[in-house]
Amino acid sequence: MPHWKLILSYDGTTFHGWQVQPGLTTIQGTLAQTLHHLTGETVLPQGSGRTDAGVHALAQVTSFSLEANIPPENLQRALNRALPPSIRILSAEIVPETFHARHSAIGKTYEYRIFLRRSGHTETTERICPPFLAPFVWDCQWNLDPEPMQEAAKLLLGTHDFTSFAAADPDLTRRQKTRSPNTVKMLKVSTILHKNEQLIYTVSGPGFLHHMVRNIVGTLAEIGRGALIPKDITRILEARDRSAAGPTAPASGLFLQSVDYPQT
Amino acid sequence: MPHWKLILSYDGTTFHGWQVQPGLTTIQGTLAQTLHHLTGETVLPQGSGRTDAGVHALAQVTSFSLEANIPPENLQRALNRALPPSIRILSAEIVPETFHARHSAIGKTYEYRIFLRRSGHTETTERICPPFLAPFVWDCQWNLDPEPMQEAAKLLLGTHDFTSFAAADPDLTRRQKTRSPNTVKMLKVSTILHKNEQLIYTVSGPGFLHHMVRNIVGTLAEIGRGALIPKDITRILEARDRSAAGPTAPASGLFLQSVDYPQT
Repeated sequence: MPHWKLILSYDGTTFHGWQVQPGLTTIQGTLAQTLHHLTGETVLPQGSGRTDAGVHALAQVTSFSLEANIPPENLQRALNRALPPSIRILSAEIVPETFHARHSAIGKTYEYRIFLRRSGHTETTERICPPFLAPFVWDCQWNLDPEPMQEAAKLLLGTHDFTSFAAADPDLTRRQKTRSPNTVKMLKVSTILHKNEQLIYTVSGPGFLHHMVRNIVGTLAEIGRGALIPKDITRILEARDRSAAGPTAPASGLFLQSVDYPQT
Repeated sequence: MPHWKLILSYDGTTFHGWQVQPGLTTIQGTLAQTLHHLTGETVLPQGSGRTDAGVHALAQVTSFSLEANIPPENLQRALNRALPPSIRILSAEIVPETFHARHSAIGKTYEYRIFLRRSGHTETTERICPPFLAPFVWDCQWNLDPEPMQEAAKLLLGTHDFTSFAAADPDLTRRQKTRSPNTVKMLKVSTILHKNEQLIYTVSGPGFLHHMVRNIVGTLAEIGRGALIPKDITRILEARDRSAAGPTAPASGLFLQSVDYPQT
Protein backbone atom coordinates (compact mmCIF):
# COMPACT_ATOMS: atom_id res chain seq x y z
CA MET A 1 0.00 0.00 0.00
CA PRO A 2 1.87 3.10 -1.24
CA HIS A 3 2.70 5.62 1.47
CA TRP A 4 2.81 9.26 0.39
CA LYS A 5 4.68 12.42 1.33
CA LEU A 6 3.25 15.59 -0.19
CA ILE A 7 4.66 19.09 0.09
CA LEU A 8 1.96 21.73 -0.26
CA SER A 9 1.58 25.48 -0.19
CA TYR A 10 -1.59 27.29 0.75
CA ASP A 11 -3.16 30.69 1.19
CA GLY A 12 -4.87 30.22 4.57
CA THR A 13 -7.09 33.31 4.27
CA THR A 14 -10.35 31.53 3.53
CA PHE A 15 -9.69 28.35 5.56
CA HIS A 16 -10.50 27.58 9.17
CA GLY A 17 -6.95 26.34 9.64
CA TRP A 18 -5.36 23.00 8.83
CA GLN A 19 -7.29 20.60 11.04
CA VAL A 20 -10.53 18.98 9.90
CA GLN A 21 -13.58 20.42 11.70
CA PRO A 22 -17.22 19.51 11.13
CA GLY A 23 -19.04 22.03 8.93
CA LEU A 24 -15.96 24.21 8.36
CA THR A 25 -13.64 24.42 5.36
CA THR A 26 -10.13 23.39 6.39
CA ILE A 27 -6.99 22.46 4.48
CA GLN A 28 -6.91 18.91 5.85
CA GLY A 29 -10.62 18.44 5.15
CA THR A 30 -10.35 19.82 1.60
CA LEU A 31 -7.38 17.55 0.91
CA ALA A 32 -9.21 14.49 2.32
CA GLN A 33 -12.31 15.26 0.22
CA THR A 34 -10.24 15.73 -2.92
CA LEU A 35 -8.35 12.46 -2.36
CA HIS A 36 -11.69 10.72 -1.85
CA HIS A 37 -13.06 12.31 -5.01
CA LEU A 38 -10.02 11.16 -7.02
CA THR A 39 -9.51 7.65 -5.59
CA GLY A 40 -12.72 6.70 -3.78
CA GLU A 41 -10.54 6.05 -0.70
CA THR A 42 -11.15 7.61 2.71
CA VAL A 43 -7.92 8.87 4.26
CA LEU A 44 -7.07 11.62 6.72
CA PRO A 45 -3.78 13.18 5.59
CA GLN A 46 -1.53 13.89 8.58
CA GLY A 47 0.14 17.31 8.67
CA SER A 48 3.51 18.23 10.15
CA GLY A 49 1.40 20.23 12.57
CA ARG A 50 -1.70 22.38 12.59
CA THR A 51 -1.81 25.88 11.24
CA ASP A 52 -4.47 28.23 12.60
CA ALA A 53 -7.19 30.00 10.61
CA GLY A 54 -5.64 32.60 8.28
CA VAL A 55 -2.10 31.21 8.63
CA HIS A 56 -0.34 30.34 5.36
CA ALA A 57 2.14 27.67 4.29
CA LEU A 58 4.96 27.91 1.81
CA ALA A 59 5.80 24.22 2.30
CA GLN A 60 3.60 22.24 4.68
CA VAL A 61 4.15 18.46 4.65
CA THR A 62 1.49 15.78 4.81
CA SER A 63 1.59 11.97 4.80
CA PHE A 64 -1.00 9.24 4.18
CA SER A 65 -1.40 5.81 2.59
CA LEU A 66 -3.53 4.96 -0.43
CA GLU A 67 -4.56 1.57 -1.83
CA ALA A 68 -4.38 2.89 -5.39
CA ASN A 69 -1.14 2.70 -7.35
CA ILE A 70 -0.71 6.11 -8.91
CA PRO A 71 2.51 7.48 -10.45
CA PRO A 72 3.58 10.45 -8.26
CA GLU A 73 3.44 13.02 -11.09
CA ASN A 74 -0.11 11.88 -11.90
CA LEU A 75 -1.29 12.23 -8.30
CA GLN A 76 0.28 15.69 -8.09
CA ARG A 77 -1.31 16.83 -11.37
CA ALA A 78 -4.73 15.34 -10.54
CA LEU A 79 -4.73 16.99 -7.10
CA ASN A 80 -3.71 20.38 -8.52
CA ARG A 81 -6.55 20.13 -11.07
CA ALA A 82 -9.14 19.21 -8.44
CA LEU A 83 -8.03 21.39 -5.52
CA PRO A 84 -8.92 25.09 -5.25
CA PRO A 85 -6.09 27.40 -6.50
CA SER A 86 -5.50 28.41 -2.86
CA ILE A 87 -3.93 24.96 -2.22
CA ARG A 88 -1.10 23.74 -4.46
CA ILE A 89 0.77 20.45 -4.29
CA LEU A 90 4.43 21.34 -4.85
CA SER A 91 5.69 17.74 -4.81
CA ALA A 92 4.43 14.19 -4.30
CA GLU A 93 6.61 11.18 -3.56
CA ILE A 94 6.22 7.64 -2.32
CA VAL A 95 8.14 7.16 0.93
CA PRO A 96 8.74 4.32 3.42
CA GLU A 97 5.67 3.71 5.56
CA THR A 98 7.66 4.62 8.66
CA PHE A 99 7.50 8.25 7.50
CA HIS A 100 4.97 10.37 9.40
CA ALA A 101 4.64 14.07 8.58
CA ARG A 102 4.41 15.02 12.27
CA HIS A 103 6.29 12.30 14.16
CA SER A 104 9.23 12.22 11.74
CA ALA A 105 9.70 16.01 11.69
CA ILE A 106 12.87 17.23 13.39
CA GLY A 107 12.43 20.95 12.87
CA LYS A 108 10.23 23.70 11.48
CA THR A 109 10.86 27.17 10.17
CA TYR A 110 8.28 29.95 10.27
CA GLU A 111 8.35 33.37 8.67
CA TYR A 112 6.31 36.31 9.93
CA ARG A 113 5.83 39.35 7.67
CA ILE A 114 5.09 42.81 9.03
CA PHE A 115 4.19 45.65 6.67
CA LEU A 116 5.84 48.90 7.77
CA ARG A 117 3.74 52.00 7.22
CA ARG A 118 6.79 54.10 8.07
CA SER A 119 10.54 53.51 7.94
CA GLY A 120 12.14 55.45 10.74
CA HIS A 121 10.88 58.39 12.76
CA THR A 122 11.74 61.00 10.14
CA GLU A 123 9.06 59.94 7.66
CA THR A 124 5.83 61.82 8.08
CA THR A 125 3.62 60.22 5.43
CA GLU A 126 2.24 56.76 6.04
CA ARG A 127 2.62 54.10 3.38
CA ILE A 128 -0.64 52.36 2.56
CA CYS A 129 -0.64 48.58 2.64
CA PRO A 130 -1.64 47.43 -0.88
CA PRO A 131 -4.90 45.42 -0.80
CA PHE A 132 -3.10 42.61 -2.67
CA LEU A 133 -0.57 42.31 0.16
CA ALA A 134 -2.97 42.73 3.11
CA PRO A 135 -3.91 39.02 3.48
CA PHE A 136 -0.20 38.11 3.74
CA VAL A 137 1.17 40.59 6.27
CA TRP A 138 0.43 42.30 9.54
CA ASP A 139 -0.39 45.88 8.50
CA CYS A 140 1.13 47.29 11.67
CA GLN A 141 -0.06 50.72 12.74
CA TRP A 142 3.06 51.46 14.81
CA ASN A 143 6.37 52.85 13.74
CA LEU A 144 8.70 49.90 14.49
CA ASP A 145 12.44 50.25 15.03
CA PRO A 146 14.05 47.00 13.78
CA GLU A 147 17.23 47.33 15.86
CA PRO A 148 15.86 46.66 19.37
CA MET A 149 13.61 44.01 17.84
CA GLN A 150 16.64 42.20 16.44
CA GLU A 151 18.41 42.51 19.80
CA ALA A 152 15.36 40.99 21.52
CA ALA A 153 15.01 38.26 18.86
CA LYS A 154 18.57 37.13 19.65
CA LEU A 155 17.75 36.82 23.37
CA LEU A 156 15.20 34.13 22.45
CA LEU A 157 17.85 31.91 20.83
CA GLY A 158 18.70 28.66 22.60
CA THR A 159 16.68 26.71 25.15
CA HIS A 160 14.06 28.42 27.32
CA ASP A 161 10.75 27.75 29.01
CA PHE A 162 8.37 29.51 26.59
CA THR A 163 5.25 29.38 28.83
CA SER A 164 4.90 33.18 28.58
CA PHE A 165 4.59 32.85 24.81
CA ALA A 166 2.19 29.86 24.78
CA ALA A 167 -1.55 30.19 24.28
CA ALA A 168 -3.87 28.02 26.30
CA ASP A 169 -4.90 25.49 23.64
CA PRO A 170 -8.71 25.54 23.35
CA ASP A 171 -8.68 22.23 21.50
CA LEU A 172 -7.13 20.25 24.34
CA THR A 173 -9.58 18.17 26.34
CA ARG A 174 -9.71 18.40 30.13
CA ARG A 175 -7.86 15.08 30.36
CA GLN A 176 -5.06 16.33 28.12
CA LYS A 177 -4.86 19.59 30.06
CA THR A 178 -3.97 17.80 33.29
CA ARG A 179 -0.82 16.49 31.62
CA SER A 180 1.60 19.39 31.68
CA PRO A 181 2.92 20.01 28.17
CA ASN A 182 6.61 20.44 27.72
CA THR A 183 7.00 24.18 27.52
CA VAL A 184 10.79 24.06 27.20
CA LYS A 185 11.67 24.71 23.56
CA MET A 186 14.86 25.44 21.64
CA LEU A 187 15.21 28.10 18.96
CA LYS A 188 18.17 27.79 16.60
CA VAL A 189 17.18 30.74 14.39
CA SER A 190 15.44 33.91 15.61
CA THR A 191 16.17 36.91 13.45
CA ILE A 192 14.61 40.06 12.00
CA LEU A 193 15.29 41.14 8.43
CA HIS A 194 14.32 44.59 7.11
CA LYS A 195 13.44 44.11 3.43
CA ASN A 196 11.91 47.02 1.49
CA GLU A 197 8.75 48.00 3.38
CA GLN A 198 8.59 44.76 5.36
CA LEU A 199 10.10 43.35 8.52
CA ILE A 200 10.49 39.60 8.22
CA TYR A 201 10.94 37.56 11.39
CA THR A 202 12.36 34.08 10.76
CA VAL A 203 12.31 31.50 13.53
CA SER A 204 13.41 27.90 13.46
CA GLY A 205 13.52 25.09 15.98
CA PRO A 206 12.58 21.47 16.68
CA GLY A 207 9.20 22.34 18.16
CA PHE A 208 6.82 25.20 18.94
CA LEU A 209 3.96 25.81 21.36
CA HIS A 210 0.52 26.90 20.18
CA HIS A 211 0.53 30.59 19.08
CA MET A 212 4.22 30.78 20.09
CA VAL A 213 5.45 32.54 16.93
CA ARG A 214 2.58 35.03 16.88
CA ASN A 215 3.05 35.76 20.59
CA ILE A 216 6.79 36.29 20.05
CA VAL A 217 6.07 38.69 17.15
CA GLY A 218 3.45 40.56 19.19
CA THR A 219 6.09 41.02 21.91
CA LEU A 220 8.83 42.02 19.46
CA ALA A 221 6.45 44.67 18.08
CA GLU A 222 6.00 46.06 21.61
CA ILE A 223 9.79 46.37 21.71
CA GLY A 224 9.94 47.85 18.21
CA ARG A 225 7.45 50.58 19.08
CA GLY A 226 9.21 51.36 22.36
CA ALA A 227 6.62 50.07 24.84
CA LEU A 228 9.15 47.47 26.04
CA ILE A 229 12.93 47.23 25.80
CA PRO A 230 14.97 44.21 24.58
CA LYS A 231 16.07 43.07 28.03
CA ASP A 232 12.40 42.74 29.04
CA ILE A 233 12.56 39.47 27.07
CA THR A 234 14.54 37.86 29.90
CA ARG A 235 11.98 39.00 32.48
CA ILE A 236 9.09 37.79 30.30
CA LEU A 237 10.68 34.35 29.83
CA GLU A 238 11.33 34.04 33.57
CA ALA A 239 7.75 35.03 34.45
CA ARG A 240 6.40 31.82 32.80
CA ASP A 241 3.11 33.71 32.50
CA ARG A 242 1.29 34.53 29.26
CA SER A 243 0.23 37.93 30.60
CA ALA A 244 3.87 39.01 30.94
CA ALA A 245 4.36 38.98 27.14
CA GLY A 246 2.83 41.14 24.38
CA PRO A 247 -0.37 40.50 22.43
CA THR A 248 -0.80 37.81 19.76
CA ALA A 249 0.15 39.13 16.32
CA PRO A 250 -2.49 38.58 13.58
CA ALA A 251 -2.60 35.24 11.75
CA SER A 252 -2.31 36.84 8.30
CA GLY A 253 1.44 37.55 8.62
CA LEU A 254 2.43 33.97 9.54
CA PHE A 255 3.85 31.45 7.05
CA LEU A 256 4.98 27.89 7.76
CA GLN A 257 8.10 28.11 5.61
CA SER A 258 9.49 24.58 5.76
CA VAL A 259 9.60 21.34 7.73
CA ASP A 260 12.84 19.41 8.23
CA TYR A 261 13.22 15.63 8.27
CA PRO A 262 16.31 13.46 8.75
CA GLN A 263 18.22 12.82 5.53
CA THR A 264 17.32 9.36 4.27
CA MET B 1 -20.61 71.53 -0.45
CA PRO B 2 -17.15 69.96 -0.90
CA HIS B 3 -16.80 67.77 -3.98
CA TRP B 4 -14.38 64.86 -3.69
CA LYS B 5 -12.05 62.89 -5.94
CA LEU B 6 -10.68 59.71 -4.40
CA ILE B 7 -8.16 57.33 -5.92
CA LEU B 8 -8.57 53.81 -4.58
CA SER B 9 -7.05 50.37 -5.02
CA TYR B 10 -8.87 47.13 -4.39
CA ASP B 11 -8.56 43.38 -4.43
CA GLY B 12 -11.76 42.44 -6.26
CA THR B 13 -11.63 38.73 -5.30
CA THR B 14 -14.38 38.80 -2.68
CA PHE B 15 -16.53 41.55 -4.23
CA HIS B 16 -19.39 41.27 -6.71
CA GLY B 17 -17.77 43.99 -8.79
CA TRP B 18 -17.86 47.77 -8.44
CA GLN B 19 -21.54 48.55 -8.90
CA VAL B 20 -23.95 48.54 -5.98
CA GLN B 21 -26.35 45.56 -6.08
CA PRO B 22 -29.03 44.67 -3.53
CA GLY B 23 -27.89 41.95 -1.12
CA LEU B 24 -24.38 41.65 -2.60
CA THR B 25 -21.08 43.05 -1.38
CA THR B 26 -19.69 45.49 -3.95
CA ILE B 27 -16.93 48.11 -3.88
CA GLN B 28 -19.34 50.99 -4.51
CA GLY B 29 -21.77 49.70 -1.89
CA THR B 30 -19.02 49.19 0.71
CA LEU B 31 -17.69 52.70 0.05
CA ALA B 32 -21.20 54.22 0.31
CA GLN B 33 -21.86 52.36 3.60
CA THR B 34 -18.53 53.45 5.03
CA LEU B 35 -19.09 57.10 4.06
CA HIS B 36 -22.54 56.89 5.68
CA HIS B 37 -21.03 55.35 8.82
CA LEU B 38 -18.41 58.11 9.03
CA THR B 39 -20.52 61.17 8.10
CA GLY B 40 -24.17 60.17 8.43
CA GLU B 41 -24.61 61.30 4.83
CA THR B 42 -26.10 59.14 2.07
CA VAL B 43 -24.07 59.39 -1.14
CA LEU B 44 -23.46 57.06 -4.07
CA PRO B 45 -19.80 57.49 -5.11
CA GLN B 46 -19.51 57.50 -8.91
CA GLY B 47 -16.72 55.37 -10.37
CA SER B 48 -14.73 55.98 -13.55
CA GLY B 49 -16.48 52.84 -14.74
CA ARG B 50 -17.63 49.49 -13.45
CA THR B 51 -15.27 46.63 -12.79
CA ASP B 52 -16.71 43.11 -12.86
CA ALA B 53 -16.69 40.57 -10.03
CA GLY B 54 -13.12 39.44 -9.31
CA VAL B 55 -11.51 42.30 -11.27
CA HIS B 56 -8.97 44.41 -9.35
CA ALA B 57 -7.99 48.07 -9.38
CA LEU B 58 -4.58 49.61 -8.85
CA ALA B 59 -6.06 53.12 -9.14
CA GLN B 60 -9.81 53.40 -9.65
CA VAL B 61 -11.23 56.92 -9.35
CA THR B 62 -14.48 57.91 -7.67
CA SER B 63 -16.25 61.25 -7.13
CA PHE B 64 -19.05 62.43 -4.82
CA SER B 65 -20.14 65.45 -2.77
CA LEU B 66 -20.41 65.61 1.02
CA GLU B 67 -22.03 68.24 3.26
CA ALA B 68 -19.37 67.74 5.92
CA ASN B 69 -16.19 69.77 5.86
CA ILE B 70 -13.39 67.28 6.41
CA PRO B 71 -9.69 67.89 5.77
CA PRO B 72 -8.66 65.51 2.93
CA GLU B 73 -6.01 63.68 4.97
CA ASN B 74 -8.59 63.06 7.70
CA LEU B 75 -11.15 61.63 5.29
CA GLN B 76 -8.50 59.37 3.76
CA ARG B 77 -7.30 58.14 7.16
CA ALA B 78 -10.83 57.60 8.51
CA LEU B 79 -11.86 55.66 5.39
CA ASN B 80 -8.77 53.45 5.52
CA ARG B 81 -9.50 52.69 9.20
CA ALA B 82 -13.14 51.82 8.52
CA LEU B 83 -12.87 50.04 5.16
CA PRO B 84 -11.84 46.38 4.85
CA PRO B 85 -8.09 45.95 4.05
CA SER B 86 -9.12 44.81 0.55
CA ILE B 87 -10.04 48.44 -0.30
CA ARG B 88 -7.48 51.23 0.24
CA ILE B 89 -7.87 54.94 -0.40
CA LEU B 90 -4.60 56.04 -2.02
CA SER B 91 -5.48 59.75 -2.17
CA ALA B 92 -8.35 62.09 -1.38
CA GLU B 93 -8.70 65.63 -2.70
CA ILE B 94 -11.35 68.33 -3.00
CA VAL B 95 -11.97 69.18 -6.65
CA PRO B 96 -14.26 71.53 -8.62
CA GLU B 97 -17.82 70.24 -8.66
CA THR B 98 -17.66 69.94 -12.45
CA PHE B 99 -15.39 66.91 -11.95
CA HIS B 100 -17.13 63.57 -12.51
CA ALA B 101 -15.13 60.33 -12.22
CA ARG B 102 -16.78 58.84 -15.32
CA HIS B 103 -17.82 61.82 -17.48
CA SER B 104 -14.52 63.67 -17.02
CA ALA B 105 -12.32 60.65 -17.79
CA ILE B 106 -10.45 60.88 -21.10
CA GLY B 107 -8.67 57.54 -20.96
CA LYS B 108 -8.12 54.32 -19.08
CA THR B 109 -5.30 51.83 -18.83
CA TYR B 110 -5.80 48.17 -17.97
CA GLU B 111 -3.24 45.51 -17.21
CA TYR B 112 -3.90 41.78 -17.60
CA ARG B 113 -1.54 39.29 -15.92
CA ILE B 114 -1.11 35.73 -17.20
CA PHE B 115 0.90 33.22 -15.18
CA LEU B 116 3.02 31.05 -17.47
CA ARG B 117 3.38 27.46 -16.35
CA ARG B 118 6.06 27.01 -19.01
CA SER B 119 8.43 29.36 -20.80
CA GLY B 120 8.98 28.04 -24.30
CA HIS B 121 8.49 24.59 -25.73
CA THR B 122 11.75 23.19 -24.40
CA GLU B 123 10.70 23.18 -20.75
CA THR B 124 9.18 19.91 -19.67
CA THR B 125 8.25 20.60 -16.05
CA GLU B 126 5.29 22.82 -15.30
CA ARG B 127 5.66 25.70 -12.87
CA ILE B 128 2.99 25.74 -10.20
CA CYS B 129 1.10 28.98 -9.69
CA PRO B 130 1.71 30.02 -6.05
CA PRO B 131 -1.57 30.15 -4.08
CA PHE B 132 -0.67 33.72 -3.06
CA LEU B 133 -0.57 34.79 -6.71
CA ALA B 134 -3.59 32.81 -7.96
CA PRO B 135 -6.25 35.49 -7.20
CA PHE B 136 -4.26 38.03 -9.24
CA VAL B 137 -3.43 36.17 -12.47
CA TRP B 138 -4.86 33.82 -15.04
CA ASP B 139 -3.14 30.51 -14.28
CA CYS B 140 -3.09 29.56 -17.96
CA GLN B 141 -2.81 25.85 -18.75
CA TRP B 142 -1.38 26.42 -22.24
CA ASN B 143 2.15 27.01 -23.32
CA LEU B 144 1.94 30.55 -24.73
CA ASP B 145 4.41 31.98 -27.22
CA PRO B 146 4.62 35.75 -26.55
CA GLU B 147 5.88 36.68 -30.03
CA PRO B 148 2.74 36.05 -32.13
CA MET B 149 0.69 37.48 -29.23
CA GLN B 150 2.67 40.73 -29.43
CA GLU B 151 2.25 40.81 -33.21
CA ALA B 152 -1.52 40.37 -32.79
CA ALA B 153 -1.67 42.96 -29.98
CA LYS B 154 -0.16 45.55 -32.36
CA LEU B 155 -2.87 44.85 -34.99
CA LEU B 156 -5.44 46.06 -32.44
CA LEU B 157 -3.83 49.51 -32.17
CA GLY B 158 -5.76 52.44 -33.58
CA THR B 159 -9.45 52.74 -34.33
CA HIS B 160 -11.60 49.67 -35.02
CA ASP B 161 -15.11 48.39 -34.56
CA PHE B 162 -14.63 46.08 -31.55
CA THR B 163 -18.05 44.34 -31.74
CA SER B 164 -16.31 40.94 -31.93
CA PHE B 165 -14.68 41.65 -28.55
CA ALA B 166 -17.78 43.08 -26.83
CA ALA B 167 -19.95 41.07 -24.47
CA ALA B 168 -23.69 41.52 -24.55
CA ASP B 169 -24.17 43.59 -21.38
CA PRO B 170 -26.65 41.74 -19.13
CA ASP B 171 -27.19 44.89 -17.03
CA LEU B 172 -28.56 46.97 -19.90
CA THR B 173 -32.33 47.38 -19.89
CA ARG B 174 -34.37 46.60 -22.99
CA ARG B 175 -34.73 50.33 -23.61
CA GLN B 176 -30.98 50.88 -23.47
CA LYS B 177 -30.39 47.89 -25.71
CA THR B 178 -32.41 49.41 -28.55
CA ARG B 179 -29.92 52.27 -28.69
CA SER B 180 -26.95 50.84 -30.53
CA PRO B 181 -23.81 51.40 -28.44
CA ASN B 182 -20.82 52.88 -30.16
CA THR B 183 -18.65 49.86 -30.80
CA VAL B 184 -15.90 51.84 -32.53
CA LYS B 185 -13.05 52.29 -30.06
CA MET B 186 -9.47 53.50 -30.28
CA LEU B 187 -6.50 51.79 -28.63
CA LYS B 188 -3.36 53.86 -28.18
CA VAL B 189 -1.43 51.17 -26.26
CA SER B 190 -1.76 47.41 -26.83
CA THR B 191 1.35 45.52 -25.87
CA ILE B 192 2.56 42.27 -24.32
CA LEU B 193 5.47 42.21 -21.87
CA HIS B 194 7.18 38.97 -20.77
CA LYS B 195 8.30 39.53 -17.18
CA ASN B 196 9.65 36.59 -15.19
CA GLU B 197 6.96 33.91 -15.22
CA GLN B 198 4.22 36.32 -16.30
CA LEU B 199 2.91 37.77 -19.53
CA ILE B 200 1.51 41.24 -18.92
CA TYR B 201 -0.84 42.74 -21.49
CA THR B 202 -1.22 46.51 -21.20
CA VAL B 203 -3.98 48.29 -23.07
CA SER B 204 -4.93 51.95 -23.05
CA GLY B 205 -7.55 54.04 -24.78
CA PRO B 206 -10.35 56.58 -24.32
CA GLY B 207 -13.05 53.95 -23.88
CA PHE B 208 -13.73 50.22 -23.70
CA LEU B 209 -16.71 47.95 -24.29
CA HIS B 210 -17.94 45.52 -21.64
CA HIS B 211 -15.56 42.51 -21.30
CA MET B 212 -13.45 43.96 -24.12
CA VAL B 213 -10.06 43.54 -22.41
CA ARG B 214 -10.82 40.01 -21.22
CA ASN B 215 -12.10 39.05 -24.68
CA ILE B 216 -8.96 40.49 -26.31
CA VAL B 217 -6.76 38.53 -23.86
CA GLY B 218 -8.74 35.32 -24.44
CA THR B 219 -8.14 35.79 -28.18
CA LEU B 220 -4.45 36.64 -27.75
CA ALA B 221 -4.08 33.41 -25.74
CA GLU B 222 -5.59 31.44 -28.66
CA ILE B 223 -2.86 33.00 -30.80
CA GLY B 224 -0.17 32.33 -28.18
CA ARG B 225 -1.06 28.64 -28.00
CA GLY B 226 -1.19 28.33 -31.79
CA ALA B 227 -4.93 27.79 -32.26
CA LEU B 228 -5.07 31.07 -34.23
CA ILE B 229 -2.43 33.16 -36.01
CA PRO B 230 -1.84 36.92 -35.63
CA LYS B 231 -3.46 37.92 -38.91
CA ASP B 232 -6.71 36.27 -37.74
CA ILE B 233 -7.14 39.47 -35.69
CA THR B 234 -8.05 41.37 -38.87
CA ARG B 235 -10.63 38.76 -39.83
CA ILE B 236 -12.08 38.74 -36.29
CA LEU B 237 -12.40 42.55 -36.22
CA GLU B 238 -14.08 42.55 -39.63
CA ALA B 239 -16.56 39.82 -38.60
CA ARG B 240 -18.19 42.19 -36.04
CA ASP B 241 -19.38 39.01 -34.33
CA ARG B 242 -18.53 37.93 -30.78
CA SER B 243 -18.34 34.27 -31.84
CA ALA B 244 -15.44 35.06 -34.22
CA ALA B 245 -13.10 35.89 -31.30
CA GLY B 246 -11.65 33.72 -28.52
CA PRO B 247 -13.15 33.03 -25.09
CA THR B 248 -13.34 35.55 -22.24
CA ALA B 249 -10.20 35.39 -20.07
CA PRO B 250 -10.85 35.00 -16.30
CA ALA B 251 -11.57 38.12 -14.20
CA SER B 252 -8.75 37.40 -11.73
CA GLY B 253 -5.97 38.56 -14.11
CA LEU B 254 -7.50 41.97 -14.85
CA PHE B 255 -6.43 45.22 -13.16
CA LEU B 256 -7.74 48.73 -13.82
CA GLN B 257 -4.32 50.39 -13.73
CA SER B 258 -5.15 54.08 -14.05
CA VAL B 259 -7.70 56.62 -15.26
CA ASP B 260 -6.66 59.78 -17.10
CA TYR B 261 -8.26 63.21 -16.76
CA PRO B 262 -7.42 66.49 -18.48
CA GLN B 263 -4.70 68.47 -16.68
CA THR B 264 -6.35 71.21 -14.64
